[in-house]
Amino acid sequence: MERFKARKIDLEGGENKVILNKSDASRLGLFSQSRVKVIKEVSSVTAIVEISHSLVEPGEIGLLPQVLSKLSASEGDTLSVVPKGKPASVEHIREKLQGKELSEHAIREIISDITDRKLSDIELSAYVSGIYAHGMNLRETKDLTMAMIETGDVIEFDKHPIFDHHSIGGVPGNKITLLIVPIVAAAGLMIPKTSSRAISSAGGTADIFEVLANVTLNLHEIKSITEEIGGVIAWGGAVNLAPSDDLIIRAEYPLRIDPYAQVLASVLSKKKATGVEYLVMDIPVGPHTKVKSMEMGRKYARDFMALGDEIGIKVRSALSYGGQPVGDAVGPAVEAMEAMAALEGLDVPNSLIEKSTELAGMILEQGGIAQGRGKEKACKLLSSGKALEKMREIIHYQGGDPDITSSRVPVGKHTYDYLAVNDGYIGSVNNHDIIEIVRASGAPYHKGGGLILNKKRGDKVEKDELLFTIYSENENKLREASKLALHLEPLSIEGMILEKHPDHRSVWS
Amino acid sequence: MERFKARKIDLEGGENKVILNKSDASRLGLFSQSRVKVIKEVSSVTAIVEISHSLVEPGEIGLLPQVLSKLSASEGDTLSVVPKGKPASVEHIREKLQGKELSEHAIREIISDITDRKLSDIELSAYVSGIYAHGMNLRETKDLTMAMIETGDVIEFDKHPIFDHHSIGGVPGNKITLLIVPIVAAAGLMIPKTSSRAISSAGGTADIFEVLANVTLNLHEIKSITEEIGGVIAWGGAVNLAPSDDLIIRAEYPLRIDPYAQVLASVLSKKKATGVEYLVMDIPVGPHTKVKSMEMGRKYARDFMALGDEIGIKVRSALSYGGQPVGDAVGPAVEAMEAMAALEGLDVPNSLIEKSTELAGMILEQGGIAQGRGKEKACKLLSSGKALEKMREIIHYQGGDPDITSSRVPVGKHTYDYLAVNDGYIGSVNNHDIIEIVRASGAPYHKGGGLILNKKRGDKVEKDELLFTIYSENENKLREASKLALHLEPLSIEGMILEKHPDHRSVWS
Repeated sequence: MERFKARKIDLEGGENKVILNKSDASRLGLFSQSRVKVIKEVSSVTAIVEISHSLVEPGEIGLLPQVLSKLSASEGDTLSVVPKGKPASVEHIREKLQGKELSEHAIREIISDITDRKLSDIELSAYVSGIYAHGMNLRETKDLTMAMIETGDVIEFDKHPIFDHHSIGGVPGNKITLLIVPIVAAAGLMIPKTSSRAISSAGGTADIFEVLANVTLNLHEIKSITEEIGGVIAWGGAVNLAPSDDLIIRAEYPLRIDPYAQVLASVLSKKKATGVEYLVMDIPVGPHTKVKSMEMGRKYARDFMALGDEIGIKVRSALSYGGQPVGDAVGPAVEAMEAMAALEGLDVPNSLIEKSTELAGMILEQGGIAQGRGKEKACKLLSSGKALEKMREIIHYQGGDPDITSSRVPVGKHTYDYLAVNDGYIGSVNNHDIIEIVRASGAPYHKGGGLILNKKRGDKVEKDELLFTIYSENENKLREASKLALHLEPLSIEGMILEKHPDHRSVWS
Repeated sequence: MERFKARKIDLEGGENKVILNKSDASRLGLFSQSRVKVIKEVSSVTAIVEISHSLVEPGEIGLLPQVLSKLSASEGDTLSVVPKGKPASVEHIREKLQGKELSEHAIREIISDITDRKLSDIELSAYVSGIYAHGMNLRETKDLTMAMIETGDVIEFDKHPIFDHHSIGGVPGNKITLLIVPIVAAAGLMIPKTSSRAISSAGGTADIFEVLANVTLNLHEIKSITEEIGGVIAWGGAVNLAPSDDLIIRAEYPLRIDPYAQVLASVLSKKKATGVEYLVMDIPVGPHTKVKSMEMGRKYARDFMALGDEIGIKVRSALSYGGQPVGDAVGPAVEAMEAMAALEGLDVPNSLIEKSTELAGMILEQGGIAQGRGKEKACKLLSSGKALEKMREIIHYQGGDPDITSSRVPVGKHTYDYLAVNDGYIGSVNNHDIIEIVRASGAPYHKGGGLILNKKRGDKVEKDELLFTIYSENENKLREASKLALHLEPLSIEGMILEKHPDHRSVWS
């Protein structure tokens, strides 16, 4: 065992990295990518070695802030270092790459090593690649889900049952949670919704609700607010529920791959850890969403239900239309504004009301309080103002301004109107293009960045009519976003007549 | 385009990394793992972003030494930075993970991005995982081989033909190159042998020959020495022949995976780039080698020949016995000593002479100068002292002492004799254990570390008879190696009677 003096190396990291001087590394037989155990008294961390000639002196060990804090160590502390071999989970990852079925034990080892950040990026990527290339059967997926739950915290509710909903895959403008949670809670059921921030989208539900209230809640707050008023909308990243998920995304995201079994396990492990007993899955289907065909959507629907049965969550699934944005607004502030307007009973797009009340209704039926007329009951809770009242209560409990109204939500001050270049009908709205334009406008980091559609698929338009308005907090960003919009043309305009026969292309003419 | 002041961050790296201050990164919309193009005048490098709060100041960009040198930049220089998207090759990597056949264009893009270090570790690992999980057909493998050649230097010989040999997979003690090259060159053929240093073994051929001469030669030296005296033994890592190979190994090695197509392409791309026209492949088969069965060995043999035909190398393959070390010596200095002893005509193990002259003979037959009696001719060149004379010439041309003799090769001064604990016969010699013991003795970094077997498989031994001697330059290392040997028991001793019938296990007794 060798002793080193700790030195902080301030890098944001995925891998647990430590940096050794070349001379120390050579003496210990360590290379770039070797692994060591770093020990301070009773705590220890396994880390990946990087080598430097001068960033640390001989006798020093450089540690990332995350490693220092895990060891409760400070600069100057004396730490012991022991070379470590490869964890056994790397063998199991290789088995999966060979197409083998993994045992429960193997899956637990992999997830536990991922959670402890014992795997290098190369090893983590091979895990994700293996699951993507060869898949997992239901038994493996169940073991994966349970392992992901057991390597994190869980919420134990004193009251039951607990309901929830979840949408997989990105459809822009999907602010339905801001309607569903207050409707369900207003009906007297409990729905502790945790949600994500945007990674590649224009804004996750957590980004949207953060416009209205604080979403960084701890487990105790999620539990107590839910038990007290029925609903909460929190950021999942602030709590340690199925934490391996975020670490696995680190490899999935740059590769843009979503291994099927990992998607199932990722969703249901978070729900189970949150204490959810009844779940409605929303599966948007459309050309620019994760799920591109009804067939694939049905497979997800069936498999979420089957996996739910295995781990003790009653799942119902709904395939929804994902061909264009839900509602008209895309971007954190404009979506919060549109959701508040819906709760206030103002005129909002029918797609938003339809989708939210259908899904909320399914939850009410699961809760046994709607006798097959869930949607009707959900609509009533919305139109009566009870959902709005509940929303104000949730906002208040989460530290926001309960008197907020849709007209006072602060959207970007700088706007650009995008006009139709000719007459016709909207043939399609490209979700990807919409997201790119909204991100260019500054979202999700600038909450005021966004876009409001004035026309959607099938609408008739005339030349110079408004198609959409871009919002931004910043003139430069607005210019970038409008340039991008002019380049991408996210709404296609078609004449009603698509072809005429005989035409000049006909060989017979 | 943003401007930053360069600052050197001294880390040995695989990925091209640059470090930005958190505030700059946020402003540019960059995260850990984002990619940027760094520009200095006419040169540019694509690099992966890491984020720091204090390692670099706002307005500074930290660059790894490899990035600085590629840009011909120094600390304090002003560099331009442009955010870059994901390279197209990542899409192709995903296609391979989905099991699709890759086009020639896709393969070229992947290899070119790997060579330019444009891929992150996560992406590189996904490439290796994809090839491992789904394989490649002959057409893809050919395109891969050609892409690996074209992204590096090639040697253009003025004289022809050029011969070579290559062993795949590790069998310890495989110092045959030190006999084959001088035999073939003494016969008047040209053999420019490049070889590797040890990664996981006890010593690569480059480590062994470095005991006798300088192996760090440039392309011009390899060419001119070969054309002048027929043979050279150089370290392949010092030249830029099929350079993507070393970068791909960065992901293969930690995962301990050798994708089949990548093995074929890796070997033949280096050979083709070296100008080789005739090649003898040695495929050791044994339980502790890369190739574990004759069936797998035959598949390699066939596929090396088929791929050779595609790229213009005439390949012959030999399956060899890989069940225990070749010769008695394992470790750089002791292997160099044993090879010199063989050339000097001293008493050395038959396995070394047999294997070397068989393979050298195959090359002589390919060269049309042995009429089916290659082995005989090779033996004659060895016993006549002509091979020794040629070896001294090669050593001289490569800057070593041409008067070296086997007795003067400097092996480790500290030795430990490992004795038999009982009478019996050697049942097996475990290659892995032998390698681990030799590495513990200090090899390959301490050239004097090693081991010489006194008994091999099938030999009769008596209690307290010498089984092997461990050599080390350092008493501590010797102690570690001998402790490991006592723990591993690399030679199994069995009685000649393995079973008696009827015995107590019989259900009929």
